This record gives sequence, C-alpha cells and structure tokens, in this order.
Amino acid sequence: MERIKPRTLSGFMELLPQKQQKLEKMMEVLRNTYSLYGFAPLDTPAIEDAQILLAKGGGETEKQIYRFQKGDSDLALRFDLTVPLAKYVALHYNELAFPFRRYQISKVYRGERAQRGRFREFYQADIDIIGDGKLDVLNEAEIPAIIYRVFRGFGLTRFQIRVNNRKILNGFYGMLGLTEKSGEIMRTVDKLDKIGADKVRTILMDDCALTGEQADEILKFIAISGTNAEVLAALEGYTGRNEIFDLGLTELKTVTANLAAFGVPEENFAVDLTIARGLDYYTGTVYETTLLDHPQIGSVCSGGRYDNLAEYYIDKPLPGVGISIGLTRLFYVLDEQGLLNPELPSAPADALILPMTEDPAPAVALAEQLRSAGIRVQLYAEQKKFKQKMSYADKLGVPYAVLLGEDEIAEGKCSVKDMRSGEQVKLTPAEAAAHITKGLADNNGPLILE
Amino acid sequence: MERIKPRTLSGFMELLPQKQQKLEKMMEVLRNTYSLYGFAPLDTPAIEDAQILLAKGGGETEKQIYRFQKGDSDLALRFDLTVPLAKYVALHYNELAFPFRRYQISKVYRGERAQRGRFREFYQADIDIIGDGKLDVLNEAEIPAIIYRVFRGFGLTRFQIRVNNRKILNGFYGMLGLTEKSGEIMRTVDKLDKIGADKVRTILMDDCALTGEQADEILKFIAISGTNAEVLAALEGYTGRNEIFDLGLTELKTVTANLAAFGVPEENFAVDLTIARGLDYYTGTVYETTLLDHPQIGSVCSGGRYDNLAEYYIDKPLPGVGISIGLTRLFYVLDEQGLLNPELPSAPADALILPMTEDPAPAVALAEQLRSAGIRVQLYAEQKKFKQKMSYADKLGVPYAVLLGEDEIAEGKCSVKDMRSGEQVKLTPAEAAAHITKGLADNNGPLILE
Repeated sequence: MERIKPRTLSGFMELLPQKQQKLEKMMEVLRNTYSLYGFAPLDTPAIEDAQILLAKGGGETEKQIYRFQKGDSDLALRFDLTVPLAKYVALHYNELAFPFRRYQISKVYRGERAQRGRFREFYQADIDIIGDGKLDVLNEAEIPAIIYRVFRGFGLTRFQIRVNNRKILNGFYGMLGLTEKSGEIMRTVDKLDKIGADKVRTILMDDCALTGEQADEILKFIAISGTNAEVLAALEGYTGRNEIFDLGLTELKTVTANLAAFGVPEENFAVDLTIARGLDYYTGTVYETTLLDHPQIGSVCSGGRYDNLAEYYIDKPLPGVGISIGLTRLFYVLDEQGLLNPELPSAPADALILPMTEDPAPAVALAEQLRSAGIRVQLYAEQKKFKQKMSYADKLGVPYAVLLGEDEIAEGKCSVKDMRSGEQVKLTPAEAAAHITKGLADNNGPLILE
Repeated sequence: MERIKPRTLSGFMELLPQKQQKLEKMMEVLRNTYSLYGFAPLDTPAIEDAQILLAKGGGETEKQIYRFQKGDSDLALRFDLTVPLAKYVALHYNELAFPFRRYQISKVYRGERAQRGRFREFYQADIDIIGDGKLDVLNEAEIPAIIYRVFRGFGLTRFQIRVNNRKILNGFYGMLGLTEKSGEIMRTVDKLDKIGADKVRTILMDDCALTGEQADEILKFIAISGTNAEVLAALEGYTGRNEIFDLGLTELKTVTANLAAFGVPEENFAVDLTIARGLDYYTGTVYETTLLDHPQIGSVCSGGRYDNLAEYYIDKPLPGVGISIGLTRLFYVLDEQGLLNPELPSAPADALILPMTEDPAPAVALAEQLRSAGIRVQLYAEQKKFKQKMSYADKLGVPYAVLLGEDEIAEGKCSVKDMRSGEQVKLTPAEAAAHITKGLADNNGPLILE
C-alpha cells in the first residue's frame, strides 16, 4: 500500500515519553501550587467565535491568529488565556463569586513564522484574581508567594521575583509633566536591559521628544537600586508631589511588607524600578521573574494588576491581578540548557515485573498488590529471552525490575532488582512495596537543576 | 464603548467552577489509574498536517473535520487520539521501547451538526499498548483490570465490563461459509440491543442475503448467555471446526482466567457474544462497559485488539490493544442524570481565612502554615462586612471558614468554623490543620452516585 511519510508540524512540540514525563511533573507542581492558593481550575474551548476573540483587535494578533470558516461560522483558535477568561467572566458574571480566582494551564495558538525556540502551539499556565468593582491590594502581595512556591516546587532557589508598580512610574512621569507620554516612555525604558542606557536616552529625546534634562531625570530614577528597604527609602524622597505616585508607593509598601509573612525570602524578591511590562493595561503592581544564573532566558513568569479585564464584553469594571508562565518555551529552554534533572526517574513505571513462569497469575497478583500500594507497575507479558526483558527494562529506565520465578513463588517472595545499583534482594510483596516506595522517595531530586 | 455580546460556541463545553472541579477529579482518577499500570502520558499537537490526519480517508470523518489553510499549509484539528498516536509511533519508531504503553487525555474536534449532548470539542481518555510485530494476549487480559480500577475510582460498583473476541465471531461465520460477509453481519448484529432480534434477522436475510437457517444459527449463537463459565462451556461445543474460532476461544479463556488475579470481581465482568464493535480494524478481544443502572447511556468505555496501528505511515506491523473513554460526553450524561455527587466538596479552597484585624500579617502567616500542611487556602482580602464575607464563603462552598481576630491572635489560635454543621472551635494553627485535614478525609465520598 502507498504510505504517507509521518511528520509533526514545525513549531509544534511533541516530546518523547521521558521528556513528556518531566513536563507533566512541572504541570503537576503548577496545578498543586495554584490549588493551594484557592484557585479554581478553568477549561475554556480552544476554538472561539473569531469576532469575540478579536474584540480588542490589534495588528500582530490578527496576523498570527489561526482563523477559519466552518459552515457559516467565523472561528479562531485562542491566542492567549486572558481573552477567553474575559469572555468567561463577562458571560458568567451572575453565576461567579467575586473575587474569582482561576488557574488555567492550556495550549494557545499563534501562527508565527517558525524559528528555533518559537512555538505555534504552546502551554500557558495562568492565574488571575478578578474582583467585582474593587480588589484589595493584598491580592497583589500574595502573587510573589505563589511564584515563589512554584519555582521552589520546580527545585529552584536561585531565582528572583522583580516587582514594580505602574502607578509609581505614571506618577513620576506626571511630576515631570510627561503624563501624556508615559506609555511611550515606559515602552522605551522597558528596553533598558537589551539596548542600554545611552540608547534609551537617545530614543527618549529623538522619538519621544523629551528634553535632555527630562531623559536624565528618568534614567536617574530608574537607576535607583539597592536592598528593598533602600529603594523604598529613596522613593520616599519623591512623595508629596503626585497623588498617583504616593498611592503606588503605598501599594508597593504593602506588597513588600507582607513578604515575610508570605514566606518569601528577601533574596528571592527585589523592588526593581526598571520593570514596566510593555502592555498598556497594567495599572498597578507588575511582576517579572528571572533565573539568576540564566538571565538570558528573560522573564519566566510575568504579569501584573489591571483595572478592566472584560471591558469589550461587559459594562462592569472588573479589576484583577494575574501572572502567566510560558510553559512550553520555559521547558524548551531548560531542556536546551541541560537543566532538566537527568537523574530524576522519568520512566512510565516504577517497577517492571518479569514473570519467569508459564502461568502468569502469580505475577499478575503481585502487580496488583504493588499497585494497591501506589507503585506504578508494568507487567512485562511478552515471551522473550531474559536478556531482552532486562534490556527493555533498561530502555524504559525503570528504577526497579521485579523477578518472579518458581523459587520465589514457592517462598511467597519476589526478587527486587535496583536497576541503578544492580543490588537484588528477595522480599515478600509487602516488603517489596515498602522497599520500592522508600527507594523512590530517596531518589526524589529537583525537577530543574541550577 | 461598543461592546460585543460574550458567548461560547454551541457544542463546546464550558463549565462553571464547581462542575469543572468534578471533571478535574475524574481526570485525576484517570491519570492516576493509567499511571499505576505503567502508561506514559503523551501529548500530541491538536493541529496536524491534514494529509497525514486523513491518510486513511473515509467519508464521515472528512466531512466533520476542522480543516483550514495557514500560509501554504493544509492543516486540520485532530478528530481522535488514535491517528495522532499512529503518526507518533511511526515517526518515533526507532526511539520508542516496545511494548509502548501510552495514555492521552486530550480534546479532539468534530464539526458535527450541533445537538443536545453532542460535542464538537470533547475529551477522550485513551490508553493503548503497542507491540513491535507481536503483542502477548496477557495485555488484553489486563485491560479489564484497568477499566475496573477507573470506574471504582469514580466511586462506582454497579458497572459491567463486557468482553468478546472478534476471532470467535469471524471463526463462527467461517464455519457457516460466511467469511466474506462477516463484517456486514457483525455491523448488523451490533444493532441487536437497539432494534431487537427480529429486525436483525430480517436485515441479515434481506440485506446480507443469508438463508433463514444461517440467520437463525447466528441468532442462536449470539444468544448464548449465562455465567462466564457457562458461556465458555457452550463455546467449547463449537471447537475443532475452525482454527480462527479456536484461537479466539483460547484468547478469551486467557482473558477470563486471569480476572481473579487482576482483582476484577466476577460481577463486574461478562463474556458477551453480542459485542462486536463496529470498526473493522479490531481483530481480537473487544470491550464495552455499561453502567448497570443506566443502560441507556450505552458503553462508557470501549476498545479492543487490533493488528495494524500505523499501516498508513510505516511498513511495520504494530499490533495493539486500547480503550477509549469519551469523557466529555460521559460527564455531560452523568450531570444530566444528577449522578455527580453533590455532597463532594467542589470549592476551589478547603478553607477561607477571614482576617478580622487591620494588619493582615497574622492571617497571611496562618494561611501559609495551613498551605504547608497541604490544605488549599484562600485568604479573603477584601474590606467587607462580616456578613458579606460569610456569604462569599457560602457561595464558594468552602467546607471551612477560619476567623482570625485580636482575641485569637493574642491566644495564638484561630477559630475554625465547619460551614456545614456550623460548629466552631478555637484551635492552634497545627490543631486547625489536623482538624481540617481530618474533616476533609471524612467527607470523601464517591465522585459519581449510582
């Protein structure tokens, strides 16, 4: 018969089992952590009415979107999780309890030009807290705690959550009489890390038409650095001149004041006045997260406070705060850099049972006993030579092989072989379960290396 | 501003948080159970090259598929998880260890005519075991154990896994000289439950051109019933006349012989000669699963043994066995019939902490302590009246509210209120964690009612 050469589209991540297992573990950390903070899992359709998805419009989005007709319907695949959330909250406004906290870990689609490390289908892992009309700033203070637990859950310690407040920036630009230009200025300042202070100064003067004095004031302001206490003290010097600024500083102080109570160590957190986030809809606290030893990766978790989630769909102010992790890209980069812990077991089973007798019933019963103890067990059923069976166990990477021959059955025991050390012990099923469970717990290293 | 009325496309399930929580719990049971049996999680793209997805062709599929162009690419959304699996195994043949066991719980897309209870986007929860050239029948014997654990995990006891073997049917039709017509006959017999024996007999004679004698032989054969032992005994009477039949009976006996070892009670399993499954590619054991008290739902988990998973992509025989649960439809029907246990907690948090003092730090610290004990905690941060706070707790459906006022703080305690009984106790944080954990464990009923 004529065959079609199988392939996976470029820009679409499709992992081999052992890698997939690591991605699943990262997702499990995300689900568990988000749940610990009272976020409800949400699942929205991947396909939406194109008119609704594009309500906000915008150039780049529209070019990248997967949009198609089916019958009379104008459909599109979601390109982020925020627009579907806005639609969801507007649609179900009367049925939801506010503040509404949801997490969503789902794939989104962008038909970008394919290039290394860019994906057309990728997971985002988002949380948002949406208020009805109002939302207390304490919610903004809680976000760093969630980011902290997520990255600690991944096994990391060398990361930093960088926080700023857009009101501080807006207020500061107000002091300089540059309120009108603040969006433009922030987008320029946001490039500081990439292009350096000199180029930022040039753009501020040439493109934004600032005076040299204004540009210098701005560069001086965003150069404020030091410990959190030092930065806050420096900011105190600007108070009393602009209400928005003062409000922003109060919010920032609330966020930093509760860090210790939230269990976030000082070294994992920094007030950083250079963080602005490009998007115009952020209005308060903004977040970025960097891996200290891998700054070239850029921010691995970003977000902020906004005032109007769903203004395109509903006539209600719905302020919120949220963060997003670009999981597929993060996973890709970690893998490229060899940071996914290779020592961590990533086999589909903890133990492979190898029956050595004709009647499989004793091996079947043993498999079920171990499974009832929570051990992931594969029963090897193929009629192969012993060497081939062991080579399969090796290829799968299972931590334990369990051999069951006539001798073992006669003694009511089984032989448990540690595939890494080669050590083999004869144990009762209950002992075997305990032995394997303990071995697995002992070998529970970090997901990601530093 | 002009607003767009938010809506979700018809045929797309979008759940409110409490229902979503129940669906997530079903998915968790599926993931955990599939993992216990050594299946690796797999995640393939939702979009594939249309040529590859439609390699097999076929009328209905092609009409229902979401297919669209992006640039020069002819793309389509997957309509099942089997074709992507076939592509995956063919593409990664050299990198996989066989038998290859994978599970995938993902959405698939079919642009069917919208009607009540039919979905255009729906979850399938599939497992498959793929052999390289050969696959031992013991794998087929293991499938009922997995189905059993899944439905027990859902909280059900009143279900039955019905098993047949296509070789028995093919061999039997061979005895009657009807090999050529066996596909046609099986598709007709498959309708027995729906249209009754008389109509089946009429179709067999009128459309399949069988003699009345042949039709009666077939109806007599598929009417064989009784305990598993009785059915097997009756089938023994047909042996020695057709090799395929004899092989099928041997396989069926292997499947039934190991049930006890696999821990499947007799009452949850039945050899049922009327089960054929419509699809031509099944070649051995076939499975259906019915909820005994809700037969109108039809089979909730079906599948079988096949000989060639990926013949359209690779010149290697890849036999396998698999089952599929149409999760979205199952969830929809269970919900419609009121069978999703309403008593099961489905709030996003186990406890809602209500700070009663101006400084939130003690409440924040308490929240983190409870979270570290594994309790899902939401910190209520809004400045509202006490009554409004309690009404929010009610609306969320949290099992516990935790109040923290000056008195409690002074004593190093907190007040834990059971939202169902109304009972309130003052406890230290550690006692509160234990109290809540115990209460949650006590209220851990079945996911699905019978």
